[in-house]
Amino acid sequence: MQETVAIQGKLTTAIIEQFRQITGEGFVLLDEESLNNYGHDETEHLLFPPEVVIRPRTTEEISAIMKICNQHRIPVTPRGAGTGLSGGALPHLGGVLISTDRMNSILSIDERNLQVITEPGVITEVLQNAVKEKGLFYPPDPSSRGSCFIGGNIAENSGGPKAVKYGVVKDYVLNLEMVLPNGEVIWTGANVLKNSTGYNLTQLVVGSEGTLGIVTKIVLKLIPLPKYDLLMLVPFQSLEKAGEAVSAIFRAGFTPSALELVEIDALQIVSRFVDSSAVPVTEGTAAHLIIEVDGNHLDTLMIEMETIGTLLADFDAGEPYFADDAQQKAELWKLRRRAAEAVKIQGYTIEEDTVVPRAELPALIRGVKALGIEYNFKAVCYGHAGDGNLHIRIKKEGIANSNDDPEVIRGIRALFKLVHELGGTISGEHGIGLLQKNYLDIVFNETQLQLMRGIKKAFDPNNILNAGKIFD
Amino acid sequence: MQETVAIQGKLTTAIIEQFRQITGEGFVLLDEESLNNYGHDETEHLLFPPEVVIRPRTTEEISAIMKICNQHRIPVTPRGAGTGLSGGALPHLGGVLISTDRMNSILSIDERNLQVITEPGVITEVLQNAVKEKGLFYPPDPSSRGSCFIGGNIAENSGGPKAVKYGVVKDYVLNLEMVLPNGEVIWTGANVLKNSTGYNLTQLVVGSEGTLGIVTKIVLKLIPLPKYDLLMLVPFQSLEKAGEAVSAIFRAGFTPSALELVEIDALQIVSRFVDSSAVPVTEGTAAHLIIEVDGNHLDTLMIEMETIGTLLADFDAGEPYFADDAQQKAELWKLRRRAAEAVKIQGYTIEEDTVVPRAELPALIRGVKALGIEYNFKAVCYGHAGDGNLHIRIKKEGIANSNDDPEVIRGIRALFKLVHELGGTISGEHGIGLLQKNYLDIVFNETQLQLMRGIKKAFDPNNILNAGKIFD
Repeated sequence: MQETVAIQGKLTTAIIEQFRQITGEGFVLLDEESLNNYGHDETEHLLFPPEVVIRPRTTEEISAIMKICNQHRIPVTPRGAGTGLSGGALPHLGGVLISTDRMNSILSIDERNLQVITEPGVITEVLQNAVKEKGLFYPPDPSSRGSCFIGGNIAENSGGPKAVKYGVVKDYVLNLEMVLPNGEVIWTGANVLKNSTGYNLTQLVVGSEGTLGIVTKIVLKLIPLPKYDLLMLVPFQSLEKAGEAVSAIFRAGFTPSALELVEIDALQIVSRFVDSSAVPVTEGTAAHLIIEVDGNHLDTLMIEMETIGTLLADFDAGEPYFADDAQQKAELWKLRRRAAEAVKIQGYTIEEDTVVPRAELPALIRGVKALGIEYNFKAVCYGHAGDGNLHIRIKKEGIANSNDDPEVIRGIRALFKLVHELGGTISGEHGIGLLQKNYLDIVFNETQLQLMRGIKKAFDPNNILNAGKIFD
Repeated sequence: MQETVAIQGKLTTAIIEQFRQITGEGFVLLDEESLNNYGHDETEHLLFPPEVVIRPRTTEEISAIMKICNQHRIPVTPRGAGTGLSGGALPHLGGVLISTDRMNSILSIDERNLQVITEPGVITEVLQNAVKEKGLFYPPDPSSRGSCFIGGNIAENSGGPKAVKYGVVKDYVLNLEMVLPNGEVIWTGANVLKNSTGYNLTQLVVGSEGTLGIVTKIVLKLIPLPKYDLLMLVPFQSLEKAGEAVSAIFRAGFTPSALELVEIDALQIVSRFVDSSAVPVTEGTAAHLIIEVDGNHLDTLMIEMETIGTLLADFDAGEPYFADDAQQKAELWKLRRRAAEAVKIQGYTIEEDTVVPRAELPALIRGVKALGIEYNFKAVCYGHAGDGNLHIRIKKEGIANSNDDPEVIRGIRALFKLVHELGGTISGEHGIGLLQKNYLDIVFNETQLQLMRGIKKAFDPNNILNAGKIFD
């Protein structure tokens, strides 16, 4: 792939002094510990310390910083909470890292219009709880919701378990304030539910991984909070049968509010990790589906769950386990949410974020297992089965950082080719960032990449903002 | 606004002969009647005949045509069914008009994945009925669904009454095949429900009004068809109270599948127009809300309707009228769907497509009435109240084409400024096209417009495709 990194300017003491004047001295960090802290995220073993970390508080401060960086052609990397899984927030070119962690106010919850205006540094779960108190619901719900920032969610177009019924981040973003690479500040759209006024800059910015501008205010659509939810966990003798059952549930007319798959290895690892015996594992179980339905009428939800349960018998499902109360539900969700963390500690350091049309899940699962044998890696699968979004954690025995292993790299390439052949693509919710950009040629040809580069150039002619990411 | 129309090439007999060789002689039209037919749409009195009309059948034919036009810098305007309300498909620069009317096949309905792949020239209602036969649902539902093409819906990001619960076209488009202005063919994304792989070209193209490429295949998400719906019509003594009631319904936790507003003048005009006495109008009624709920459980829908009915009493609502059967429902919907057509014949030739945050509807309605007095025009309002999307039909007594009247133009500008002040924007579902571009400066500054022009340039460096539209 073509590399078009701009000629870089150099950070000088005088420039750093200008940054100090903008934010105050305490928010310009140069010590080694800070640089290291801000030099990694949740992406495997990558570490790229920036030359300076700036923690601005306002849009105006970011605008002033960007003007200086643009003038001097200094690379800038925006960062949320650093929970990313594709290295999108890593300052691999050095330069300035702008942390949005101090921009952490929810500015207004508009109960008349069911909208919230927030700064980017608010933790997703904090935002969800704040609107929940008003009887409102912001569904996008990444596993890292307890620590990730809403701004990072915008950058990566995050999803999570609720996406299957409620959609992903892009479906809730109405309007964004952002600082352009040259320091100008724009709004991308309007605070409305329908908009056919000019190009959809809002949707272009969502998922652009901080390469087009630094988002400083976010207007999100909210919906009424459903009154009830029911949760069950269903064991399957075969991973493929579990995949087939997923498609059947939708074909029968149901739209669960979550439909997650967890392979047995992952469940056992995470159960040990969190010291939970919530799920009694029956001999021969290969995988579980976690199925949630929600709505305002408990009786109809119970009928739905029962009908889904009956339907699953056709796929050799075992006895469902119902979560009876809030605590049992929380316990089940904990097992699902902490799966990545648990298996990572077991050496499954690479997490792929494959997504295919829902009914192709069994073919993908079969393929993963076959490729593991061919390329000598072990894989555990879990993820948002209802969306066809399967996280595949990979390890090669005896190699700590298997991401650098040539055989594993060939295996991942073969996996992504399979995903593409199945009509899917290589990232459903984690983004391409730094980690996956060498695989992008599998799903995009040069024409598509040139269009993306052209868009980038319209926003960032000097290529200073998060340069070298995605297609660059 | 800056005009940046490219230097135009000239159509020659030799070039037209090349077009004939591509599509066959019968599909290259030069006669005056055809040129006039393809020179107008549903946008008021505008007429801009092209120099030639081409009716290709395949992506390859369009690609070949675009290559020639790009080489010779000949303006090209893509066109669907010509039902647009902003002049987006009018060939105001002459040149080539490409009609997609022969590309009218539904290519596949994928019942396993709940997706449909279609060509752009399929009539929206035909597509809806085809998937309905399989128990599936494609909700976006413009008033013109009986004649408009799905390709045009993509171009304008159409909405319709169901958008309030189900979203607009952009929420259903997964992937697009398109011919770029230089004749290259790309897919914009993948056939998946979640995608964080590169910039979201799909969402950028939806609503771009045929300025970035000619869409030739469309992959749409489908959902299970709800089993039941209930419909009622509720009279209000005050238009503003009706607007307030809209917001209250959502705040009470309901998401109706349609929530439409029709001002009494519009209802009376359309009732006469379609010769219907379906709605008995009580003395003093100012407006009606049309409220629909849908779902799989009839009993819960009845409870919802009843609760909504009770809630509306707080807003001086009159006795609701329930549509008892399919025929009564169809009759009610006919009154709503044909409102535009009926009031247009009465001289309300201008239809504005304002959209504001839902709770600002009463302020918008008040403003419209005040501006009518100030600028000497009459206005009737109807539209998708649940989305804050209000269509405002305007006439000035004694003037046939009031769109050219300086006082009316000042009035519209004042109206759009009000919409912007209320947090809204100037088009919710019709697009900017040719008609509204002179008002775009109200909602976008030069920085935003330059970003859009930069995007356009990345796709169409020679500015041959639908040039002079939106921001150009």
